[in-house]
Amino acid sequence: MSRPNVFFAAAVAALCLSPASNAGDVRTASALRDRALNDPTAWNLLESLTEIGPRMVGTPQYLRARDWGIARLKALGFAKVHAEAFAKPSWHRGGEAAEVVGPYPQKLAIVGLGGSPATPPNGVEAPVVVLRSYADLVAARPNAFKGKIVVVNQPMTRTMDGSGYGAAVVARYGASEAAKRGAVAYLVRSISTGEGRAPHTGTAVNDNNNAPPVPTAALGVPDADQLERMAARGPVRVRLRLASWSDPNSVAWNISGEITGSAKPGEIVVIGGHLDSWDPGTGAIDDGAGVAITAAAASLIARLPQHPRRTIRMVMFGSEESGGSSDAYLAAHRSELKNIVIVSEADLGSDRAYDVKLAAANAPALAPLRAVLAPLRVFVSATPPTHGGSDVEGLHKAGVPIFSVDQDATRYFDIHHSADDTLAVVDRAQLNQNVAVMASVVYLTADSNVDFRTKPGN
Amino acid sequence: MSRPNVFFAAAVAALCLSPASNAGDVRTASALRDRALNDPTAWNLLESLTEIGPRMVGTPQYLRARDWGIARLKALGFAKVHAEAFAKPSWHRGGEAAEVVGPYPQKLAIVGLGGSPATPPNGVEAPVVVLRSYADLVAARPNAFKGKIVVVNQPMTRTMDGSGYGAAVVARYGASEAAKRGAVAYLVRSISTGEGRAPHTGTAVNDNNNAPPVPTAALGVPDADQLERMAARGPVRVRLRLASWSDPNSVAWNISGEITGSAKPGEIVVIGGHLDSWDPGTGAIDDGAGVAITAAAASLIARLPQHPRRTIRMVMFGSEESGGSSDAYLAAHRSELKNIVIVSEADLGSDRAYDVKLAAANAPALAPLRAVLAPLRVFVSATPPTHGGSDVEGLHKAGVPIFSVDQDATRYFDIHHSADDTLAVVDRAQLNQNVAVMASVVYLTADSNVDFRTKPGN
Repeated sequence: MSRPNVFFAAAVAALCLSPASNAGDVRTASALRDRALNDPTAWNLLESLTEIGPRMVGTPQYLRARDWGIARLKALGFAKVHAEAFAKPSWHRGGEAAEVVGPYPQKLAIVGLGGSPATPPNGVEAPVVVLRSYADLVAARPNAFKGKIVVVNQPMTRTMDGSGYGAAVVARYGASEAAKRGAVAYLVRSISTGEGRAPHTGTAVNDNNNAPPVPTAALGVPDADQLERMAARGPVRVRLRLASWSDPNSVAWNISGEITGSAKPGEIVVIGGHLDSWDPGTGAIDDGAGVAITAAAASLIARLPQHPRRTIRMVMFGSEESGGSSDAYLAAHRSELKNIVIVSEADLGSDRAYDVKLAAANAPALAPLRAVLAPLRVFVSATPPTHGGSDVEGLHKAGVPIFSVDQDATRYFDIHHSADDTLAVVDRAQLNQNVAVMASVVYLTADSNVDFRTKPGN
Repeated sequence: MSRPNVFFAAAVAALCLSPASNAGDVRTASALRDRALNDPTAWNLLESLTEIGPRMVGTPQYLRARDWGIARLKALGFAKVHAEAFAKPSWHRGGEAAEVVGPYPQKLAIVGLGGSPATPPNGVEAPVVVLRSYADLVAARPNAFKGKIVVVNQPMTRTMDGSGYGAAVVARYGASEAAKRGAVAYLVRSISTGEGRAPHTGTAVNDNNNAPPVPTAALGVPDADQLERMAARGPVRVRLRLASWSDPNSVAWNISGEITGSAKPGEIVVIGGHLDSWDPGTGAIDDGAGVAITAAAASLIARLPQHPRRTIRMVMFGSEESGGSSDAYLAAHRSELKNIVIVSEADLGSDRAYDVKLAAANAPALAPLRAVLAPLRVFVSATPPTHGGSDVEGLHKAGVPIFSVDQDATRYFDIHHSADDTLAVVDRAQLNQNVAVMASVVYLTADSNVDFRTKPGN
């Protein structure tokens, strides 16, 4: 990022000073890094993908994105480009609306949550109960909210690493807990760090749903605060209408292509992002960026005079938002698990990377990584990441090692799953810094013989 | 922070909805939290402590701070207030200066590093070698820098949790590595995320020093960049003069006081910050803030109608910056280790807390914590912290459990160890939010019977 003109001098200095390291790798990784900072590939991919619009499984745009992915990987020179189909029931948003009926009638900014059942055609109308934390909902007794619309207005904590999301998002899955306590609908403050009116969607269905959910939607942050203030003064009635429907017979696709390894093509480094996106925006940061960063990084490596020793496989996962691609990918690749040496997914936007977590970072073959990434203000940690991305959880649980390129998520959850997730919020220099980091890490891991399944130090 | 007027309503709602939890604790913790947000104790402590000036071990100001600590703890109603002396050799800054001799003579902003030997009275003058990463220094062969002044200009990565510091600070301990390679002095880019001219000091001595160090100082960030640009064009000569000296016979003190437990006074929750500080600033964020936050939190608890069941001990550690208090505290308290149920140190400034890491967070007695902290935009994680603070490392390694209140360190390393560390950079509302979090956590842990040594789930 800073002073790219001295990168080459630094790389040469490192060469002269580092007799023990693999000099070819340092030079190649440094050159790759510098090229990535000015390469247009990632931006062009992201621009053309977001032009398609939102990409929900089961929609015509999703099919266009699938075809886009196949065509782009082929155009970028990837080998073995193909799509792997899997069954994935889809949820479809119909018309939706909510309003305060009284004491002061007004529209509420809402967005239905994925998996929510529809309301009756005329909606549900009921008094609201506003809780300030999700803990208050789960602590409540059975039937505590009989006939009510439960509102949980718990703010999300802004953090750089996105850790506030895990603590806050449990509230988005509250429709079953509300149902068990007699509620007729469940509204949740958008899982967002922002203060904007645009509501943030997301799936309402996960393992927490141990009872059929009531109709459920996310409120704009100011709308949730408005309801809380109103409810503190007296009874409030709200009407919610959702005309959502599901298609049990939809299909999704994981799409992939490879940069064939020059010495050990049977050993595979897997990277990727996800192609599907929520519908309020155009899926630029979630996760067009991840697709663009990993595809661009792999394609920069493909353009080297010699491919790294191992194969690099880039995957565009087909159903992250409501789940499915992780299990499907694991099921389709169980027989080659031992060949996948390491895996990582980029799915936290387009803002700058700040560290790389890689348990084997201190292996001699990976020693050049610190000097290559220091000028990008990225440090390297030998602490293993806890999470490699939702789409690669299946591989990880099945024993495939992971690495992470950690990105600054400070503003990510201002935008995530809302209408604001468009190309307008993407900073091109930071996007390219990510490509530079990803390309450096992937190149060095793929050109090494490091067995990532061996515990470091062994 | 936001909408304190509805905190009480939320607390009452939680009471009504949470039949299983200890209602008294929730109400007390919520009231404590709300009182802390507007309480002047922390600010007053910090203002009066920083008025003393910098507090290096072995200086008159340090003795004044010791007396201040004892007097303040007594005035706040702590019991058993006393000081525990330990031997701590001190390092003293004499006059210091550095300049570019050629090609373009100019002064350099530098600050000597703690533990550095002095130069000869007229300084050392030599050509410089500028390296862009610390990895380049340790990769260099013996005598690679014979007769040179080595400069390492590696930038630090800005992160919210301060994790960039660990990756960058290794370079501050490079004077022995430089010596082993024939260098006559070692200059390091300030370990800082800022771009300001003020250099950042710190100790140059740690376990990495496996050879006698050469004289060593930190350069202002712009000065390090200036040297790198100059050196890229041709030979650069620098002169460094340091008149530092050491006193092997200094003494430091750990000061403590207690809020006696109402039911189990022999079980102790230990919290604290450190009283010593580097000399360029007045030690406001490092670590007057930690002292003020923990002392104010304990004193708010002391003012409750009834003390919590367990004793709370507040410690002002006496020598964090160059080490010593952790070992001294462990040595003096080895016989009561089993009585210390949990420990935590506040030593990351005065900016907002964003999470609490406490392995036992899901214990029923601590369940109220999530609802109490949610309005402060602080989430609770049952992931154990990896680090409880430098001064309590000894206790932690000896088996005492730790918790952490994690603070936003995004701007901390712009200021840390530099002349800018004064009261001017402290935001009073964020300081008080920290007091509110610390008071809530300490109250609930001290009023519980939770055995933090038992693994969660057992």
